[in-house]
Formats: sequence, C-alpha cells, structure tokens
Amino acid sequence: MPATATDPQTSRTRSWWGWGYTDAHPDDAECIATGALLPGTLARPLPIPRVADLPIGRPAATPPASLAHLVTADPQARAAHAMGKAYRDVIRALRGRPGRIPDLVARPTRDQDVADLLDWAGEHGVAVIPFGGGSSVVGGVEYRGEAHHAVLSLDLTSMGRVLEIDTAARSALIQAGALGPALEAQLRPHGLTLRHFPQSFEFSTLGGWLATRAGGHYATVHTHIDDFVQSLRVITPAGAGTSWRLPASGAGPSPDRFFLGSEGTLGVITEAWMRLRERPRHKASASVAFADFHRALDAVRAIAQSDLAPANCRLLDPGEALLSGASHEGSTVLVLGFESATSPVDARLTAAVDLARAHGGRGEAAPADRDSPPDAAVGAWRSAFLRMPYLRDGLARMGAVVETFETAATWGAVPALIDAVRTEVGAAAAKATGHPATVNCRLTHVYPDGAAPYFTVAVAGRPGDEVEIWDDIKAVATEVLHRHRATITHHHAVGRDHRPGYDLQRPDPFARALRAAKDALDPHRILNPGVLLD
Amino acid sequence: MPATATDPQTSRTRSWWGWGYTDAHPDDAECIATGALLPGTLARPLPIPRVADLPIGRPAATPPASLAHLVTADPQARAAHAMGKAYRDVIRALRGRPGRIPDLVARPTRDQDVADLLDWAGEHGVAVIPFGGGSSVVGGVEYRGEAHHAVLSLDLTSMGRVLEIDTAARSALIQAGALGPALEAQLRPHGLTLRHFPQSFEFSTLGGWLATRAGGHYATVHTHIDDFVQSLRVITPAGAGTSWRLPASGAGPSPDRFFLGSEGTLGVITEAWMRLRERPRHKASASVAFADFHRALDAVRAIAQSDLAPANCRLLDPGEALLSGASHEGSTVLVLGFESATSPVDARLTAAVDLARAHGGRGEAAPADRDSPPDAAVGAWRSAFLRMPYLRDGLARMGAVVETFETAATWGAVPALIDAVRTEVGAAAAKATGHPATVNCRLTHVYPDGAAPYFTVAVAGRPGDEVEIWDDIKAVATEVLHRHRATITHHHAVGRDHRPGYDLQRPDPFARALRAAKDALDPHRILNPGVLLD
Repeated sequence: MPATATDPQTSRTRSWWGWGYTDAHPDDAECIATGALLPGTLARPLPIPRVADLPIGRPAATPPASLAHLVTADPQARAAHAMGKAYRDVIRALRGRPGRIPDLVARPTRDQDVADLLDWAGEHGVAVIPFGGGSSVVGGVEYRGEAHHAVLSLDLTSMGRVLEIDTAARSALIQAGALGPALEAQLRPHGLTLRHFPQSFEFSTLGGWLATRAGGHYATVHTHIDDFVQSLRVITPAGAGTSWRLPASGAGPSPDRFFLGSEGTLGVITEAWMRLRERPRHKASASVAFADFHRALDAVRAIAQSDLAPANCRLLDPGEALLSGASHEGSTVLVLGFESATSPVDARLTAAVDLARAHGGRGEAAPADRDSPPDAAVGAWRSAFLRMPYLRDGLARMGAVVETFETAATWGAVPALIDAVRTEVGAAAAKATGHPATVNCRLTHVYPDGAAPYFTVAVAGRPGDEVEIWDDIKAVATEVLHRHRATITHHHAVGRDHRPGYDLQRPDPFARALRAAKDALDPHRILNPGVLLD
Repeated sequence: MPATATDPQTSRTRSWWGWGYTDAHPDDAECIATGALLPGTLARPLPIPRVADLPIGRPAATPPASLAHLVTADPQARAAHAMGKAYRDVIRALRGRPGRIPDLVARPTRDQDVADLLDWAGEHGVAVIPFGGGSSVVGGVEYRGEAHHAVLSLDLTSMGRVLEIDTAARSALIQAGALGPALEAQLRPHGLTLRHFPQSFEFSTLGGWLATRAGGHYATVHTHIDDFVQSLRVITPAGAGTSWRLPASGAGPSPDRFFLGSEGTLGVITEAWMRLRERPRHKASASVAFADFHRALDAVRAIAQSDLAPANCRLLDPGEALLSGASHEGSTVLVLGFESATSPVDARLTAAVDLARAHGGRGEAAPADRDSPPDAAVGAWRSAFLRMPYLRDGLARMGAVVETFETAATWGAVPALIDAVRTEVGAAAAKATGHPATVNCRLTHVYPDGAAPYFTVAVAGRPGDEVEIWDDIKAVATEVLHRHRATITHHHAVGRDHRPGYDLQRPDPFARALRAAKDALDPHRILNPGVLLD
C-alpha cells in the first residue's frame, strides 16, 4: 500500500500535522507577520515537526495475510492518522506531544474489506478508529486511554466513488470516503450538486459529514447534511444493513437518523444515497452593515422567520468583519446570498435587505446577474474563510492559542449567550495567559427558532502550556454554553473533547438507549472507544 | 372519573366504535344511498353496535388506592379504548368481534401520574397502551395476544394544555394530550399556529402525531411533524428525560428522532416544545386538470423539484377527483395551494400552474385575495376529505370493505408502483369478494426525490368475512409495496397491522439497536406490546 501523503486528485502534499496542503502553509515570514497582530506571541515560529522525531514503534498487532494488502504500518501514514486538525492537535504535534499513534492504517476498497477488518479487530481486541478526511476538530479520530493493546485507523478514502446516479429522483449513491472536491467533480457532468460546503470541504468526506451530522452550505431550512440523506449503508461488528431509498417514511423511528451523528461508535457508514440539487442558475448576494450588533440580531431573526430562505445568512461581529476584510469601520456585517436553479432570486434578496434596513442596516442588494462579481464584502469574507485554518496553524507556530467553537440556542437565549461568551471566555483566556484575548463571533446558520453562533478565540500562550491553557478556556466555554442551554455542538461533532458538555445535554433515557445499542452492535467495544460513550 | 364520551370542548358525543361524532354519522338512508354506489353491498345497514352487547368482564387488575382517582373500569370508557378507527376496527365492532377490551382506562393529569402508573404496571405485569385521540388506523392502540394478564389504556387527553409560549422563538410547550382543535385554539390568540392538519385533526393529539411521525399540512419541504419538534419530554419505565430546546444540534444521534415514531413502545411522550408559524396572511390556490395521469406525475415532479414549495400539492386520479367532486369529466386533478405570513404568493402559484401547463395541464391560477372563495375544485375536495371517514363507516355498515393505505417511493418507482397497486390490489379485492373493486389513488405529499401515493380500496364484502377479506387484500398490497421498494407507511405508523411490511423494511442493525433500547427502557415489556417489536 502506498505510504505517500500526496493527494492523488491534486498531486499536492497533505500535511500530516497541520491543515490542508503543505504548499499553502504560511511561511515563516507570514507566521511572524500574523503573530505580530497578537501581543505576546513568540519572536520566531516553532519549527515544523518531523515524523522522524515521533515515538513510532513497532505495531502492537499484525493483520492476517488475507488482510495484509489493505494495511500499512508506514510511519508517515501512522503519523498522519494519529490526530485530527483541531488547534489542540496541531499544537501537540508542534510540541512533540502527539496523541497515541495508531499501530496500523487500513485502507479498505469495498464493504467486505470493512467487515473483514472489523471481524479481525473484534477477535483481537484492536480498537478501530473510522477515519475520513481526518479533519475532526473534537478529538474524534484519535485513540485515548490504554484499554486496547493496539489501534487501527480505518481510512475510508479508497472508497470515494459516485456509484450510481438517479436523475429522475435527483440523487446519487456515493461511497463514504469521497472527499468534497472529488464528489462534486463526479456529479458536475450531470448538472447536479450536493452543495455541502463546510470549511473543511477539501479535506473531509461524505462519511465524515454523515457520521458527525455536519452543518453545510445552506444557512436556513435544510442546514445539516442529515436532511439530504435518502438511505445509508452501515457495517457494524454485528452485521451490515442498508436502509431503503425513500423520499420519506413514517415507519418507526428513522434508522438513518440513529446512525447519523453516531461518529463511528455504532458502525461504519460505507455508502449513502444522497439527495442532490440542480446547480444554481440564479444567484444574488449583498452585505448589510449595522452599527449595533444586537439590532443586527433582530434583523437576522426577522429574515429567519420570513419565508425568504437565504442560502447564506452570516452575521459577522465587528471583530470577524475586520479580520475577514468585510468591514474596516467597526461595523457588524450581514452577508446574504440567495440562489435557485429554477427562479430568479432578486426579489427575495431585495426583500431580505429591506428587512435588514428596517432594523437599522445600511446596504443595498448587489446586481443579481450570475456573471457579475459578488458583493465585495461577500468575496472578502469567502476568501478569508478558506484561508483561516492555515493562518490558525501559522499562529500556533507563533505560540498563540487560537481555536473556534460553535453552538446553537433559541432566539431568546442568543444575545445574553453571545455577551457571556465574549466576557467570560475572554476573561478566562486573559487570565490563563496574562495576555489580552480576542473573542469574535459570527452566526453561521439561522432558524425560525434560534441561531448558531460561532466563536473564534485568539490569545498568546505560555510556551509549552498551550494545550492546558486551551483546555482551561474550553472548560469555561462549556460551562457558559451549559448555563445558557446552548448545545455543545451545532456542526462540529462530540468526539472526545466535547464529552463533558454532551453528557450534560443528552437526556438520560436516550443515553440508556444508546449504551444498549452500542452493546448490541459493537459487543467487543472496538469502535471509536471514548467517543459519545465510555 | 367521568365515564362520558362527551367531548368537553364541543359538547358533542364521540362514537366509541366509529369515526368522530355520533351526530355526524350518516343515517340509515344515507348509508343505503352510498351503498348503492358499490355493487353487491347489503340492502340494509348493519345495526349500530351497543356497548351492552360487548363481552366486558370484571377488570383483571386493580390499581392501588393512590392511583384509583386516575383509573376507571367503566364499560363505556373501556369499549371506547379497545381499538382504533381503522376499517378493520369498525367492522369488528359492527360484527361483534372487537379486539381485547382493556381492563382499565387511566387518565393521568401530570407527569408524575404517568410515572406512577408505569411503575405500578411494571410491578404487576400489566400491559400499557398509550392512547391519544384513538384514531390509529394500524392497530396501534389495542392489545393482541395473551402474554399480559391485564391491559391498561393510558389516555393522555387530560393533559391537553399549552403550557408556555415563547414568541421570540415562535414556539410553544404543549402537553401531548392536546387534541388538534384545542391546541390551535390556545395558540390563536398569539397569532401563531402549528398548522398540522391530518385528516384526523379533530380526533388526534399532539402526542399521537409525534409518536407516529404523522404527515401534516405541508405537501412539500417540512411534511412531517418531526421537523417541528424543538424538544420532547419522555417518561419511560426506566426514568424520564427532556431534550434541550434547541433550533439545531449536531451532538450525537438526535434523541428526539429516536423517540419520534416509537409508537409508545419506548416511553410515553408527555409534552413537547413545538416550532410554530405565524398564521398565513397570503393564500392562493388553483386546480389544474390533466387528461393523462402519467403526464400529471411529471408535472408534479417538476413542481416538487422547483423551489416553489407549495403548501398543498395533491394529485387526484380520475376516481378520486370524481368521488370528491373535483372533476366529473374523468380528469386527473392537481390541487395546488400556496400560503405565507410574510410575502404575497401569487407569483409562486402562477409559476406552478405554468409548470403544470407545460406538462399538459389545463387550468389557471385562482384570484389570490384571501377573502375570495377558493377554487371550486379545491373547496369540493376539502369538504369531501373531512367527510370521508364518516362515509367509510356508512359503507362498512352496508357490508362493504373500504379502507385506505399509503406509501412513499422515489420518482423512478412511482408510476409502475401506482399501476401495480391498481391492477394487483384491485384484482385481489375482486377475487376475494366476487365483486367489482375500486382502487383510487392520490398523491398527498411530494418531494424532490419522490412522492407519497395514497390509495383507497372499496368493494362489497362477503357478510361476516370482511376482516379476513381486508387482511387478504392488505397482504397483497404489502407484497406489491415491498416489491417496488415503497415504504410500508408514509404517515400512518406501523402499529400491529404493518408489522410484516415494517420487518422487511427495517435494516437489521437498526432492528438490533431498537430491541436493545427496548430492553433497556422497558425491562418488563409493558409498553404497547407487539407494536414495532415482538
């Protein structure tokens, strides 16, 4: 099995320790320039870590000959599968303190391979960590603890094809290991699109989106990947099953909804029939500036409670707007986008901008012609959005603590929640480091009954203590979210990092049901141990 | 506890054996006139059954003094809780062969009552059948078998209040026992509505809708009650729990989605925070006639795959259109309705009618003014829709076999499915009875990826064999649905009648998970035995 980290689609090299492609990483000069924006960071960046310096020993398990062609013990592959891509993971790599490195990496190419690997792992007590693009930011793809003598990372990306397209039902059967760009490339010739564009789009897979209930492209109505699932195939240690392709059903609790969000703890999703869209032919976008953040919240609520259904409806607080170049005047900025394959969207954009102006916004609808450049603030924001994780890693190299977290709450709770996070998390970050901290906020998705705030924290760390500092800050964030009855995660999964918050949020009868299901489907407790459940 | 069947809201008397209010039942003359439309029915209606003729003995269990005020053994109450309101139930009552009559009927008024009743029933091995409005048409509220020495019907309708309204989040905390009209009456002063209007609206409860994943008012986008749930409170024999009020969450599998559709087998839903709408201020409707049913299917698909999102999009085949008075010319009729609280809907209606005309439809958009009368075909259909179950009971009294069943399938499967049901179920009905059978079809809900066909079967029965005849017809229907990979139920639940089809549809890993959850939450196996699971 090849050990290269080169992406076969792009011929670019994926970083084993940081975000994305190595050729897109900020160089030392950019790291220093970015670090200069955050008082107290290092003078020079931490060196880029090397696989050769990692404590990678002989694997503690050996697969049988029948599976050997699927499995590698190559150090580069094992290093690249040791952790996800949270700040916590990046700084651990930079500080030479990675999580437990898996003994083996398997790359199955068909369902039977997955079943065989699970059988072998179950017999030998080997932990299995399902792995898609490896972009988890919640400790979802690493092993913690000592209960298993060996760990296998189950990399699904060799199962990345669109197997079948049903144009009448506008849906496709897609293997779970398909990365975003490859998936869309296979749909494009049919004029169809899944239109699921998380920030991790280039480096995450359909299976990862499904297993974590990822938030997607649409800011309103169908915001999560969940709603686009027509059927799932799941392979569990206790057997495999495929739900029927149905546009809807009322037959018992939804089987698909039970495996969506199960984060590799109940089974391995190997393929799914997904509902697609025609590619949009009509698009229009605009940005609206607000002097007052709380009035902007009211504007967004009015839009969310209308039936205008914007595809994009992101509210950037002044810090976010500044950072992304959407506003240099200290304004709150609302980025609105509409799209449709069937009807012009100009009237909907105008109506949404009118609602925003009625709540104190200043802005106008941009021309709706598809070929015209999008509103400048919209474009600036979009570029910054995709560059952000790379800059985070650059800041991490400068010794900064930089991370995001997100939530969702009902409208009544939102204003006080955002204020409390800013104040309390900011204070905790400053106290833990002795440096001034930045806490920015944006709303990523909005609902008739609430919104999803997304926070970015940045503060210079204390050299060597960055992990502990972030863990302290995150504990305060978790406490604030819990006090305001805001969810521990809106689209970033639970993993291992969010377990304390998840355990508080999850109703006890459902916890009992989930534990019982885990016992029934994964009797040897090999699947992603420590995620969702003990 | 009062034993009356009088509805406290309306002062009208509910029928214990048939649909709805006794004063709305067709009289003998109307029964005879309706029966005359179906060759081979009886000359005179079967007599209305009397509770006094039922084999109601002494209850096999006695509640403790502490629960006595919640429980009755009154024969009238027990008879009214013995079965749902399927044709199968009505004809069993008419033929003096009802299902097992519960020993006791309990009417809890608070959560603690429910918990206490479950505790007592668990200790004494008493089966508990959660009961809302009793409108189940799938054998969901009766006891079958002999495994329990006593049966308690747990009637939730004394818990029917709207407890709290959150206008900012447009949502309300509603007790599960609220019947449709009372629920809407409590929301109306706030300008809000749940807008969930199943055919059973007057005689079904929020808890019943949630436990069965009921299909609702909207023909597109958010078609099931599932999407309007913000949080649930569930009381199980193993403890109670409430999910957080959240507009969205990605934290693990959805707890609410696991209890939605659980049909009283995992716990008793006692209250829910529900997402509401503002009452619509803009409405417009139209009907479009088609000479060809299959071209009409294409038209409906085009509308479902647009982003026009009609609230109503019912396609009536010629038989349905004739029966409801929507068309007397043998046409297929598409009934379209649009509504909005925020924006005029004329343009969307016009665009939908244009799409229909592009596929061979003949029709025009009706005036969109709210105060103008709706399109005549729309009005005719709506009246017939609400009267239908009463007429079914009248036909049952004439010895007819009259029942409905519904399904959903992807677009590619829909035309052949409908043709096969018409042919094969019609042939089975004719063969079983020796009489000509009618099988009509309508689409009730449509999706970008498929549609929900709803079938009505009518044929004269053989006196005394009606139950067996219907069971034979239904077995053929189930086989046809299964062969076409169409769901056993789109919005009528599984109950006991749909178990064979459900067992075929449910993926095995989910069946294992569900059985394990049942063992964990209902260890004494008292909750709705035989529904969903053995």
